Amino acid sequence: MNYNQYTSRLLEKAVNEFAKLPGIGRKTALRLVLHLLRQKSEDVDLFADSIRTLREEIFHCKKCHNISDHEICSICANPTREQDTICVVENIRDVMAIEATQQFNGLYHVLGGIISPMDGIGPTDLTMDSLVSRVKAEGIKEIILALSATMEGDTTNLFIYRKLADYDLSISNLARGVAIGDELEYTDEITLGRSILHRTPFQTIFK
Amino acid sequence: MNYNQYTSRLLEKAVNEFAKLPGIGRKTALRLVLHLLRQKSEDVDLFADSIRTLREEIFHCKKCHNISDHEICSICANPTREQDTICVVENIRDVMAIEATQQFNGLYHVLGGIISPMDGIGPTDLTMDSLVSRVKAEGIKEIILALSATMEGDTTNLFIYRKLADYDLSISNLARGVAIGDELEYTDEITLGRSILHRTPFQTIFK
Repeated sequence: MNYNQYTSRLLEKAVNEFAKLPGIGRKTALRLVLHLLRQKSEDVDLFADSIRTLREEIFHCKKCHNISDHEICSICANPTREQDTICVVENIRDVMAIEATQQFNGLYHVLGGIISPMDGIGPTDLTMDSLVSRVKAEGIKEIILALSATMEGDTTNLFIYRKLADYDLSISNLARGVAIGDELEYTDEITLGRSILHRTPFQTIFK
Repeated sequence: MNYNQYTSRLLEKAVNEFAKLPGIGRKTALRLVLHLLRQKSEDVDLFADSIRTLREEIFHCKKCHNISDHEICSICANPTREQDTICVVENIRDVMAIEATQQFNGLYHVLGGIISPMDGIGPTDLTMDSLVSRVKAEGIKEIILALSATMEGDTTNLFIYRKLADYDLSISNLARGVAIGDELEYTDEITLGRSILHRTPFQTIFK
């Protein structure tokens, strides 16, 4: 007797493709594919097209490596943004997170990762050289390092700091401390220690 | 100032499309899309193609309504399967689950759902008439009802039973009882009660 798990080769192929996505197992993949099968043909075409055009027509901004529909992204191309301040982030999700705060009006630089020997990611895998070139060429005055508060983030911060130490720049790091809404007794010791060490003068908060 | 959450319209479109899938929110959609962006162009094309061809080229088997690459599915077209036994299931995932047990060698009938007034699904939304036609035309001798052990499943079972009561058929239901591996003390009362009521003669198990 011949038992095939899938009665359709096309179905199996689509499930295999979906199951390649991160965090999607074969059961979820099958659920998604069967959902698509129930949709109108035009809607499914729209879905497939959006994926194809995404991969073929999208650019990585030549200046900041952000994702863009053009060679230069809308943030770099915006003349109202402060052209001498760069916020260094790991990936484009961080750009979106910082943009959502509406507290930053400079430019970005997307590293494309952080230095992580465990994952085999070294400085040459990141857009480090391009950052140095920008600092040289664009008259940058301030660099804000906005990487994760992890060991890898700190390593990367230090690496960038050393690379840029010879330039006339103000280099700062995101403030570390007690998160808004957190209760002190549940804050970990290291964070609490750092927040005492780097306490903010009261006048600064209300200026 | 103009803050766009997405710096790319193409990216936003793809995220919107992914977020339409069941159980996929906008954050997960973004993660999936950014994953696809890191893949090779050919691989992404394969993914998009598998979705498009799936929707355009797949058939629903004319006999059992299973998903198939041809007009008649591989199970219905297989002459070694018992042609007089039909197992009635809710959807094609159930076909796959029963096939995986390797305990059934008859044909299937995929209802496409179960009667559920809460969701506005009545008998006419299912392939009920086509089941009756098959029983009339194909000389079916046995019907196995393999629907969910829920109120909706029971309602549907009863409905089918009444529809087919006039034909010379043996109609059975999946056995309900304590699942293999379950401990008695954690089995719910109704299941345990049913398993005592429909206890299996010892000889039957080892015959």
